[in-house]
Amino acid sequence: MKALFFDRSLSIRNLARPRPKNDEVLIRVVYSAICNTDIEIIKGYMGFKGILGHEFVGEVVSAKSRLKGKMVVGEINCSCGICYLCQTRRKSHCPNRTVLGISDHPGVFADFITLPEGNLHVVPEGLSPAKAVFTEPLAAAVEIMEQISIRPSSQVFIFGAGKLGLLIAQVFRLNGSPVTLFDINARKVAFALKTGLNALLLQELHPEAKAEVCIDCSGSPDGIKTAMNHLFPRGKLILKTTVAKPEMIDLNQVVINEMEIIGSRCGPFEPALQLLSQGLVNPEPMISKVFPFKDILRAFDYARKPSSLKVLIRH
Amino acid sequence: MKALFFDRSLSIRNLARPRPKNDEVLIRVVYSAICNTDIEIIKGYMGFKGILGHEFVGEVVSAKSRLKGKMVVGEINCSCGICYLCQTRRKSHCPNRTVLGISDHPGVFADFITLPEGNLHVVPEGLSPAKAVFTEPLAAAVEIMEQISIRPSSQVFIFGAGKLGLLIAQVFRLNGSPVTLFDINARKVAFALKTGLNALLLQELHPEAKAEVCIDCSGSPDGIKTAMNHLFPRGKLILKTTVAKPEMIDLNQVVINEMEIIGSRCGPFEPALQLLSQGLVNPEPMISKVFPFKDILRAFDYARKPSSLKVLIRH
Repeated sequence: MKALFFDRSLSIRNLARPRPKNDEVLIRVVYSAICNTDIEIIKGYMGFKGILGHEFVGEVVSAKSRLKGKMVVGEINCSCGICYLCQTRRKSHCPNRTVLGISDHPGVFADFITLPEGNLHVVPEGLSPAKAVFTEPLAAAVEIMEQISIRPSSQVFIFGAGKLGLLIAQVFRLNGSPVTLFDINARKVAFALKTGLNALLLQELHPEAKAEVCIDCSGSPDGIKTAMNHLFPRGKLILKTTVAKPEMIDLNQVVINEMEIIGSRCGPFEPALQLLSQGLVNPEPMISKVFPFKDILRAFDYARKPSSLKVLIRH
Repeated sequence: MKALFFDRSLSIRNLARPRPKNDEVLIRVVYSAICNTDIEIIKGYMGFKGILGHEFVGEVVSAKSRLKGKMVVGEINCSCGICYLCQTRRKSHCPNRTVLGISDHPGVFADFITLPEGNLHVVPEGLSPAKAVFTEPLAAAVEIMEQISIRPSSQVFIFGAGKLGLLIAQVFRLNGSPVTLFDINARKVAFALKTGLNALLLQELHPEAKAEVCIDCSGSPDGIKTAMNHLFPRGKLILKTTVAKPEMIDLNQVVINEMEIIGSRCGPFEPALQLLSQGLVNPEPMISKVFPFKDILRAFDYARKPSSLKVLIRH
């Protein structure tokens, strides 16, 4: 089969079709999508070598599976199921886990992949594959709601109007909360406004303006400092950005203002599928371009442009 | 009246008795206590100049007050009552506040002080002044319980077996939680053990040992890093330490492990008084020495010794 292999550089290779082990099933990939994490991995993040990619929608082909012929999306963390963290509802933190296209598990930029059957979620009827491929990043947005409770009357600031910021804004909008996206990039602000979200240039945010919830998905090391400066005492600061190196943080400010800083990562797939299939979150305007798999190297060049949003791959 | 004045150095001065303004009442101080914050202020923290001290128990002397003749303790934040933060149950974060002996309000190392009547809490009958003077620091320990919910089965690690660490351990013990105090100082560990708490030299903590709740009250800039290394994914890290300068924090670790970092400061007085008066928290073994007010300069020298715990002043 054809696959996009990363080993210091990207190349399309002819590789053997993967064989499902134990609880795994074989899946034919229908759509995949490029995530910022893929681009970080190319820069050296996680030290990964192998088939890249973790956002996908595909069809189960294993004859033995109860899901045979079904269109599915899949959770990316493959956990042991028996350790303390797995047994306390923290499978995505299993120390023995592999992660699809990120850590010790071949990724989705390929004709076929394998995943444990328990990781799969059937795509509801009527939900197009091009929308369903947003389940994984949307689940990461929904994860915030799993972690904290937010009063509908609470002001929410989101720093970074990229792909994740836009999805988070769409999720928080459903809470009735007044949500504003901030970005230094005027084109991103304009795009957010065009899709009906509330957005403002970061440069125009009043230095004294504060919110009860600040979410940093800026992708920038300065993001957390900006977010801290705009948080009310006893407010919640959600961190979505992973940055390469340790940052200087004013911990006095955290203690004196009794801030709550919450790291947030992968989220639950079922609510994300619900929101997509009921049309409550619409990811379609975020699709910058769809490339056929044979042009995936060009797709990566395109995805790296600061102005591009989601880039999909049709397999 | 006599008072301990700080202006680059400490001195006992003869000053005019303070006059209660608006909602304030006059209080004769009976006992006061030296807090680490007082020692930090002497080093330059908060840039405070004036009468030092914020932990006290005293008798209301204002004739007009409904509390006349009562023994009281007092909350240290004097808030405006009308701003957004005051009206949303965050009086201790009021931007217009003054703070007893810390910011723009003369402190308790004096014969008399003034405080708003609304800040005062009557000491329950039978609770000795020498115990009641612990209400303020104990309230800071109880504040953690106001901020997070903790499963009684959750392992709790407390870093720093100083005064605050010992009080926090006594509070968490009441939850049924397995609590362990860690300190680099063998005498502090021995003291904690002697009072019936579970304690261990930090050097003996296994590098892989983890807890669901880690509390940093080490007073050291390294405390947060140690606490982060011993926290389970999705665990809660409580910060009690204020350190002079910004620290390098690995935010990737916060995001990937979905940590929750919660700054914690002043707490509620009523539950602290309850715990003291019902004997559920016993601060008495923590009293290192009691000095008469005339010897307060010697008391400060004594309090600065690493081995000393609480130093009380009898007025």
